Amino acid sequence: MALINENYLKLPGSYLFAEIARRVSTFKAENPSADIIRLGIGDVTQPLAPASIKAMHDAVDEMANQATFRGYGPEQGYDFLIEKIIETNYKSLGVEMDEVFVSDGSKSDVGNIQEIFGVNNTVAITDPVYPVYLDTNVMAGRTGTLQNNGTFEQVVYLPCNAENSFTPALPTNKVDMIYLCCPNNPTGTTLSKKELKKWVDYAKSNDSIILFDAAYAAYITEADVPRSIYEIEGSRDVAIEFRSFSKTAGFTGTRCAYTVVPKTVMGKDSEGKEHSLNQLWNRRHTTKFNGTPYIVQRGAAAIYTPEGQAQIKATVDYYMTNAKIIREGLITAGLQAFGGVNAPYIWLKTPEGIDSWGFFDKLLKEVHIVGTPGAGFGPSGEGYFRLTAFGNRENTEKAIERIKTKLIL
Amino acid sequence: MALINENYLKLPGSYLFAEIARRVSTFKAENPSADIIRLGIGDVTQPLAPASIKAMHDAVDEMANQATFRGYGPEQGYDFLIEKIIETNYKSLGVEMDEVFVSDGSKSDVGNIQEIFGVNNTVAITDPVYPVYLDTNVMAGRTGTLQNNGTFEQVVYLPCNAENSFTPALPTNKVDMIYLCCPNNPTGTTLSKKELKKWVDYAKSNDSIILFDAAYAAYITEADVPRSIYEIEGSRDVAIEFRSFSKTAGFTGTRCAYTVVPKTVMGKDSEGKEHSLNQLWNRRHTTKFNGTPYIVQRGAAAIYTPEGQAQIKATVDYYMTNAKIIREGLITAGLQAFGGVNAPYIWLKTPEGIDSWGFFDKLLKEVHIVGTPGAGFGPSGEGYFRLTAFGNRENTEKAIERIKTKLIL
Repeated sequence: MALINENYLKLPGSYLFAEIARRVSTFKAENPSADIIRLGIGDVTQPLAPASIKAMHDAVDEMANQATFRGYGPEQGYDFLIEKIIETNYKSLGVEMDEVFVSDGSKSDVGNIQEIFGVNNTVAITDPVYPVYLDTNVMAGRTGTLQNNGTFEQVVYLPCNAENSFTPALPTNKVDMIYLCCPNNPTGTTLSKKELKKWVDYAKSNDSIILFDAAYAAYITEADVPRSIYEIEGSRDVAIEFRSFSKTAGFTGTRCAYTVVPKTVMGKDSEGKEHSLNQLWNRRHTTKFNGTPYIVQRGAAAIYTPEGQAQIKATVDYYMTNAKIIREGLITAGLQAFGGVNAPYIWLKTPEGIDSWGFFDKLLKEVHIVGTPGAGFGPSGEGYFRLTAFGNRENTEKAIERIKTKLIL
Repeated sequence: MALINENYLKLPGSYLFAEIARRVSTFKAENPSADIIRLGIGDVTQPLAPASIKAMHDAVDEMANQATFRGYGPEQGYDFLIEKIIETNYKSLGVEMDEVFVSDGSKSDVGNIQEIFGVNNTVAITDPVYPVYLDTNVMAGRTGTLQNNGTFEQVVYLPCNAENSFTPALPTNKVDMIYLCCPNNPTGTTLSKKELKKWVDYAKSNDSIILFDAAYAAYITEADVPRSIYEIEGSRDVAIEFRSFSKTAGFTGTRCAYTVVPKTVMGKDSEGKEHSLNQLWNRRHTTKFNGTPYIVQRGAAAIYTPEGQAQIKATVDYYMTNAKIIREGLITAGLQAFGGVNAPYIWLKTPEGIDSWGFFDKLLKEVHIVGTPGAGFGPSGEGYFRLTAFGNRENTEKAIERIKTKLIL
């Protein structure tokens, strides 16, 4: 019988959202009249920008006529989109056309990037973290097995918590692949240019690669927070950056993202010879992927028109006003709250003596609000809880009012 | 320095289409007035079905309103599409809703499926073959290195040629993963139910898995050729099937496909315990992929309406009339031609003493037609040449007229 990839057996079950659904469902059965508000949602709710809608209608019409029909496009994405990406997001940062790879989503990109690396590399992740970084390395056999303390034996965890202001310390040992998510999911916090410079310097000194997930860059409001790792000197030698249209332009159900792999980022083979990661990723991308839909790329490119930029900014502002309402409301209620200034996520410290799941139950039972237990994002998420700003204004305001007036703290 | 995946270094360069482009470009420079006709193209040229166009316009409008906006969908695809797929293509074949995984393309699926298998499995491929099966296994480390004879040392090649009527013989040794493409790219030939039954029986006896690529099923015209591997008794225990909207409905630039993984197909771990490949693939699909665009899934579902079915059939018929013109024209011209009856590909034997690339040059120079040398698809493709039926009627007719009247044979 064909053998399976046994690394898959090391993965724990996808427990988090199934368990949330189970508890909410039980509560609803017992309290059928409760008006439950979901602030755990990690998905956008506002419609696409009118500029994208128009561009996609036009593109659909092009597909209806032989003269304008598009078959296979370049796997790396159409030039009309890549040009706009560089012009808007990487002006003067030195990113070139053949360093940008358009894809169907950042989940695919951050999940697939590890394929071009050797299985014996040491992986470092911040903790708590978006689970895809870890799970895809488990599947590839880079992590060893899950231990009783909730960590994989060969992975270097970099705790981020209130004590260190969610600023991970550099690893004390040498690591090869470093996943950084900034602005961060789930903590909603960011790293300053000074902090990021430390990571670039570490990577240069230790021949490591930084895998920089900037999916929430559009939510940054403070001036000194870098939008791109390429704002940091030396980063073009050590960093790969991931960006997405999902949260930037409401594309979670429309699917478009891109990865920047500078031609100057190198890995080595076992004989010490250097190889361009750009070339390896290009080979991966062109062998296992056949391009993002033409219609979708047209919709994505439309956000870079002046009206498109104004429209997506209005939506991001809408969510960030929600974030402000949540953050300030929680603080008024006497809770410790983090994030929510440069990201649509608010990360709160659960009250003394209540763990993540305990707070989940308390919030659901006392004020009928659903959030996400921090423990679901890694061991260092225990004692924290995530609320998101993607709901509508009315529900967000109602939820915070309940927390302020009815939650027993 | 981070180590790379050294298996990538075993891949030969992507030589085929680059070399074709180089030779065509040189010829054009020397013969600027030549009217070159491309019959090498493996991409559709006719517009999408009006039913798909309408459905996509409607879906784009849904994305413009909060009440109908769609964010993340199920990674496995929307029920509205999966229901139609089963109803249309798998009626009475026992395929269930949670056995169908919608994706962004068959290239992704046939490239990614090997991830759920162990790296020590033996892979068998028919030869010649769609290069993605082989290349993705090279990248994963299942093939060993490329030898001087053009084959990878650990891969079992199953030659398909005129002598065996393009019907591969069963392996003499035990193999674990068997890639079959039927109707076949590049040969345009198919396997009968009786032949496929031999493969299912082999797989059952040897605990192998059949990876059945049915991307061209819509082009089958003969009654006794199976459209799906699941028409073969016993296949639900050993076969995974890949289908695509690319060639079926002109979706090469719109991107939608699906994979069927019956819950009854098992692999084993090193201790001999059985595991459901459906569950492993579900874990892979939900961890590294975030769903096919809602708009695209609506466009795909629309081909299953009565008008959609009629529209895509008209386009397939158009291409198959081209195939008939090419096939019969080649035979009239005195060439041996295969395929083109149940597939949009015509595979011709190059004349005595002329190899694949020699025939490429001859066709280009004498009659200004571009095709694809068979050697580009594997060692057994040497001495053959591929023409495709995806061009327009006028050029197809003109090209065949030139071959009949001007090619020196």
